[in-house]
Amino acid sequence: MTTTPLLDKIAGPSDLKQLSDSELATLAGELRREVIEVVSQTGGHLGSSLGVVEMTVAIHSVFNTPMDKLIWDVGHQCYPHKVLTGRRDLMRTLRQKDGLSGFTKRDESEFDPFGAAHSSTSISAALGFVVGRDMGRPTGDAIAVIGDGSISAGMAYEALNNAGAEGRRLIVILNDNEMSIAPPVGAMSSYLSGLYAATPAPMKALAEGMEAFMPPPMREGARRARQLVTGQGLSGTLFEELGFDYMGPIDGHDMDQLLVTLRAAKARAEGPVLIHCCTVKGKGYAPAEQSADKYHGVAKFDVETGTQAKSKPNAPSYTSVFGKALSEEASRDPRIVAVTAAMPSGTGVNLMADRFPSRVFDVGIAEQHGVTFAAGMAASGLRPFCAIYSTFLQRGYDQIVHDVALQGLPVRFAIDRAGLVGADGATHAGAFDIAYLANLPGFTVMAAADEAELVHMVATAAAHDSGPIAFRYPRGAGVGVEMPERGEVLEIGKGRVVREGSDLAILSFGAQLADAIAAAERLDADGISVTVADARFAKPLDTQLIEKLAREHSGLLTLEQGSEGGFGSAVLHHLARNGLLDGGLAIRPMTLPDRFIHQASPAEMYSDAGLTVTDICQTAKSILMPDANIVDFGARA
Amino acid sequence: MTTTPLLDKIAGPSDLKQLSDSELATLAGELRREVIEVVSQTGGHLGSSLGVVEMTVAIHSVFNTPMDKLIWDVGHQCYPHKVLTGRRDLMRTLRQKDGLSGFTKRDESEFDPFGAAHSSTSISAALGFVVGRDMGRPTGDAIAVIGDGSISAGMAYEALNNAGAEGRRLIVILNDNEMSIAPPVGAMSSYLSGLYAATPAPMKALAEGMEAFMPPPMREGARRARQLVTGQGLSGTLFEELGFDYMGPIDGHDMDQLLVTLRAAKARAEGPVLIHCCTVKGKGYAPAEQSADKYHGVAKFDVETGTQAKSKPNAPSYTSVFGKALSEEASRDPRIVAVTAAMPSGTGVNLMADRFPSRVFDVGIAEQHGVTFAAGMAASGLRPFCAIYSTFLQRGYDQIVHDVALQGLPVRFAIDRAGLVGADGATHAGAFDIAYLANLPGFTVMAAADEAELVHMVATAAAHDSGPIAFRYPRGAGVGVEMPERGEVLEIGKGRVVREGSDLAILSFGAQLADAIAAAERLDADGISVTVADARFAKPLDTQLIEKLAREHSGLLTLEQGSEGGFGSAVLHHLARNGLLDGGLAIRPMTLPDRFIHQASPAEMYSDAGLTVTDICQTAKSILMPDANIVDFGARA
Repeated sequence: MTTTPLLDKIAGPSDLKQLSDSELATLAGELRREVIEVVSQTGGHLGSSLGVVEMTVAIHSVFNTPMDKLIWDVGHQCYPHKVLTGRRDLMRTLRQKDGLSGFTKRDESEFDPFGAAHSSTSISAALGFVVGRDMGRPTGDAIAVIGDGSISAGMAYEALNNAGAEGRRLIVILNDNEMSIAPPVGAMSSYLSGLYAATPAPMKALAEGMEAFMPPPMREGARRARQLVTGQGLSGTLFEELGFDYMGPIDGHDMDQLLVTLRAAKARAEGPVLIHCCTVKGKGYAPAEQSADKYHGVAKFDVETGTQAKSKPNAPSYTSVFGKALSEEASRDPRIVAVTAAMPSGTGVNLMADRFPSRVFDVGIAEQHGVTFAAGMAASGLRPFCAIYSTFLQRGYDQIVHDVALQGLPVRFAIDRAGLVGADGATHAGAFDIAYLANLPGFTVMAAADEAELVHMVATAAAHDSGPIAFRYPRGAGVGVEMPERGEVLEIGKGRVVREGSDLAILSFGAQLADAIAAAERLDADGISVTVADARFAKPLDTQLIEKLAREHSGLLTLEQGSEGGFGSAVLHHLARNGLLDGGLAIRPMTLPDRFIHQASPAEMYSDAGLTVTDICQTAKSILMPDANIVDFGARA
Repeated sequence: MTTTPLLDKIAGPSDLKQLSDSELATLAGELRREVIEVVSQTGGHLGSSLGVVEMTVAIHSVFNTPMDKLIWDVGHQCYPHKVLTGRRDLMRTLRQKDGLSGFTKRDESEFDPFGAAHSSTSISAALGFVVGRDMGRPTGDAIAVIGDGSISAGMAYEALNNAGAEGRRLIVILNDNEMSIAPPVGAMSSYLSGLYAATPAPMKALAEGMEAFMPPPMREGARRARQLVTGQGLSGTLFEELGFDYMGPIDGHDMDQLLVTLRAAKARAEGPVLIHCCTVKGKGYAPAEQSADKYHGVAKFDVETGTQAKSKPNAPSYTSVFGKALSEEASRDPRIVAVTAAMPSGTGVNLMADRFPSRVFDVGIAEQHGVTFAAGMAASGLRPFCAIYSTFLQRGYDQIVHDVALQGLPVRFAIDRAGLVGADGATHAGAFDIAYLANLPGFTVMAAADEAELVHMVATAAAHDSGPIAFRYPRGAGVGVEMPERGEVLEIGKGRVVREGSDLAILSFGAQLADAIAAAERLDADGISVTVADARFAKPLDTQLIEKLAREHSGLLTLEQGSEGGFGSAVLHHLARNGLLDGGLAIRPMTLPDRFIHQASPAEMYSDAGLTVTDICQTAKSILMPDANIVDFGARA
């Protein structure tokens, strides 16, 4: 391990004030090596963190955090920030149970004034702090650092639009690396490329950026002159038109440019300022710079070679099973199209894009538009699959209600990352989708019990033209079941009994079916005979199956990897409405508890949540042996 | 009534093809008078419809609807469109039960290819149709008409960004009237004003717009020349930078300009085109042009005088009670601030703005930003109230989950228009908020039983710093209860018994408490003794109260003006988890049914929904007299 003499002296950002500009540049080098070293042992979001090493040092040296509020958009680029803000010793616990979050988090440090993980929230939050400051709250400047992918989302535009009109002093740093997770798409991205392609000489660019800090009449003159001379009237105008002073583009790895620019902004800004800062994702680590995704998210790796220690699972991932099944359906039906919001490989639609590139649409980080765009395609007679992670689909909720459900349009929602997801923690959990979809009139909501079921659900969704349909499946590897040659179209609203018993019934919705079966086998050994059924549908409910299970057993346990208000709620409502609880039914809905579950391995998270095989067994026993300790999963929270 | 000789000959848009340009202008005059006449009898969105009379005639005469898809953003400006597309005879049923919708609606006409009511969806939908066309679906051009308020929302920006990059032939007409419901806010609005302020002569503007239709090299030359000559490099650049050809600004009431421009766009457009069309909201009807909101939404009125026949309710509206209570709290606590998304008077925060203008923030049609901006203010120590209608708050759902709930920030959500809302129909119903908020960890969710309770809930929310809190209340007038001098801070998670009985308990959450009491009185007459309780909180639940009601009565009925998955679901979950259903409990959760309820009076809508006093009585009797007919509200759908 290399030595880090300067970094060793930094207990917190205030220590940076003692360093000269050239020492700050040296420190950045040490910090970069430290981050590479740490992430090689923990895995995580390496590329984005390497891209902002110099920026992190420069911001903390120029501004007075934590009084000044530094807000990282998404927050996955915060590793250098964590190292500098008193969390260096904890970095090896990154993304692990009880360790540091992989994102910024208010609970974790006063240097994280506003947590993140979803994109494009930073400018809104920063504007909130700025209003607080102007109304006398004890807070200083607010600095939002936002990537070129994130700034293309509608929410960031709304914030720029409002901040520009408010005219309050606010610093936005556009971290332009021409990458979100995938290469960026959309017209905004081309626009930004044009801005820096047109300004090759960094110092010239810097000088132009400085126009913003001339007094207004002089500034206008300078800008006009620049337009007339260069024929380039457009540099920065989009942001300027929205009311921001525009500085840049500058080289985000050049400490001198960063310091000069940030100091000028700090000294002179009167209103909102946008600093356009060009960086390289993965900067300074050759294997990252050379990889296609710039080491966006990596497993543990060997620092020398860059080789990642990715474990080989025994079963294919749900994501790849979906991608393959979708491609197969697309090959048979030219009306099938797919929409992704900047996650082609994360969602697996890249597999379809490889074969049918003109039928896969990456709309950028734009879930709102993506959903309604899909609705428009459905209205034209196409068969769109909208492949968005459960947690990010929350961004398109109103569009799902208003454009899809209300019009009964057959948009197919492929919802990956349903349930708890592991190292990304609570912000990425797919906890609420069953609840927010299953109460929408006309929706069909499915969950895959295993990867073979997922293939059937893709086929079922493709064939379903009579209204919207969604199917959810978890992150990670399947359970290793035999795969069908081709997906079968399932009967809508029908579950299946997978194991017959007589004492108790477990009705599972989704990927915990294997756990339900394991629990049943364990209970068998204790003399309790358990039926296990796979509901397949949360909507429409298989009411016949539910009533039969209720009638023929002494207890009924529902199981789902989601919050209250979803599948168990639908079952309870059906039973209550029809008087089927009047005579007594020992029913126990097992859901995620009423609290957020923090990052750990998925197994640890489900244990924390009270949704393991052991928990299922305990709940079953609490029904059939009521004298034993009753476990209340709700109250446990 | 004036005669309408040309309009009388128009059975559908194809008849417009027979008219000369000057006849089209004459027709527009007749159409305007017809719309004024109709709306004077029905009430509705007059101002926006009057602003697009000429545009409607011009679009239908130039394009071939319904093969070409005309998509009106929001859709409340569609009255002239409905008159021209075969619905003239039905116009007097507008916004009434079984009548025409006040918005575009797919079910209603093939000329409404994509319905609307929420803003900013039209470009996304139009792009969907355009992709369908390019993939061989039987659909022609797509024309989205979007207002300057709607285009400032993030979703519209996402769509422009994607459409610009896709480069497909697509027509977007920016209907720029410098008004959404309130005067528009934000930097984009200033930008648009600048565009047309800078181009006074209409024909000059038209000529400039035509540059877009020159071959590319010539076009570039012309644009450069214009910049050099006029010193105005910026005209249209924002849209041009996003990949659109920009035409305009043109006068949207000048039929010649409209026809020339639309014909040029139809003949020559190869990619996406934005036509900037300036109109006057309320155009051609003096009382509308002179009113502050340009007659955005009106009651029936006298055509001669413009006097609206607004009925005087006996009780103040919930909206005004909220606005007044908020102002009072704000006068005592300088940390209180308010956020509205382009609805200052609709939400009542205008009352606070009158007294404390610098503490009320109108962010524009930008619910996503508004919620996170409020979260940022809360993080700085302010006490933000985010006042957004239930249906529009769906736009900020991910921000509620990710920025507010996950961080436990004390943002106060004032949720007006909860439940069914009447003439605006299903798109404006506040059906889902209980369900999408009550399963978020750490949230407190209240509903006001009457307008006095609303005052207490404003005080409770103001005092609640330990996490997010929401309170919902319906559209319209309160029930006329005595008003408290000042709001009291309610005990969190505690309901109240308002009527004691012994046979059956009704536990009401929200504004149907009066119905519950009325039902109890009616049941009393039939010899059934009924307890009525006001839950006040859906979260945290008053579990003590619920258990007591369950224990001491033969039946328990929950009541809420919301979908499944909300309050009743929470009660069922609590009882099931704790084994309180094991011994039998005749519980009936009464919620909105599993279908959308179309426009009518609120009373008619609740009757349709099965949530009237009579329905409550029937449900109660079905419990206590099980041999009588059992009403299944779920199945009734």
